[in-house]
Amino acid sequence: MRLCFVGDSMVNGTGDPEYLGWTGRVLRHERSQRPELTGYNLGIRRDTSQQIRARWREEVMRRLPPEFEGRVVFSFGVNDAVQEVPAADTLANAQAILGEAKARWPVFMMGPVPIVPEDARSRSRGLDGALGPLCSRLGIPYLSVFDALLATPVWLGEARAGDGAHPGAGGYGRLAEIVLASSLWQAWIRSGA
Amino acid sequence: MRLCFVGDSMVNGTGDPEYLGWTGRVLRHERSQRPELTGYNLGIRRDTSQQIRARWREEVMRRLPPEFEGRVVFSFGVNDAVQEVPAADTLANAQAILGEAKARWPVFMMGPVPIVPEDARSRSRGLDGALGPLCSRLGIPYLSVFDALLATPVWLGEARAGDGAHPGAGGYGRLAEIVLASSLWQAWIRSGA
Repeated sequence: MRLCFVGDSMVNGTGDPEYLGWTGRVLRHERSQRPELTGYNLGIRRDTSQQIRARWREEVMRRLPPEFEGRVVFSFGVNDAVQEVPAADTLANAQAILGEAKARWPVFMMGPVPIVPEDARSRSRGLDGALGPLCSRLGIPYLSVFDALLATPVWLGEARAGDGAHPGAGGYGRLAEIVLASSLWQAWIRSGA
Repeated sequence: MRLCFVGDSMVNGTGDPEYLGWTGRVLRHERSQRPELTGYNLGIRRDTSQQIRARWREEVMRRLPPEFEGRVVFSFGVNDAVQEVPAADTLANAQAILGEAKARWPVFMMGPVPIVPEDARSRSRGLDGALGPLCSRLGIPYLSVFDALLATPVWLGEARAGDGAHPGAGGYGRLAEIVLASSLWQAWIRSGA
């Protein structure tokens, strides 16, 4: 199976001294079940839903040839919150991206994460609350991680102690644990639904 | 500094149960000197020089905005050898890619690696011998790793024991050591030349 992770710096794993991020840790764990698991990390720093909408399709198509089983995981919204993209635009972009992706591959969406600046954090939480129902309408599993990460001191703690925006190995490790422990993820990675 | 690694499955790190590959191990080491080091892995399985020529520019431009220091590392040629791309085509593609990249960013090229099938391995070694002089003409540092990996039993040994093509953590770890130990790499990562 080939898995593309599409999103922003939190998908890239920016700030992790281990250079795994949450995606590398999830892949490392899942490989014990499926040794033929290839991961492609398509997280780009500062990308909003608009920039992801413009690029995700061609970058994913190059990496998921039809003769191999391919799946796509998305996570974005934080930079929309930081750059004050209107929520209606973020949701329109998300609907376009996710709807088109789902027509071709099994798709999983992870919600935006908490960030240090309080205004942007509040907008990120608002997006989390709106992206879940959108995914529900599209029939795409949506994992909200906002509250669980907010309840984990290491997430914002490492961000404040680091570059002010990104966690380190502890935060990304905790996020990977949250993903791996969720029944939504477990069902999706097993069956694609 | 933001570093893009552009190439094939050996750049992706396919087969590594740690999901670091040689690029992740190199980043992890270099970060001790420069904490603000972001890596983008743009290795795609089965990509030849032709496919890389068609995509590298737009994928790298999205990830290296001009306001941040960006550099590009290339490594390809193995799939040209496997798919019997004429050597003249590989060299023409390499010249187009590397010449254009060097006009914009500091560029480093790592040569193709040994692979299990003997015919393709021989063609891969031939490309290694031709890409070095090309890079020399372009003023781009070229690190040949072919003979050093061939002298490392774990490289082909893990490939044979694994999926028949890709090494595991031992092989990728050894390749990262070869890169990090080379004076070419050390000079380039320090100064970009």
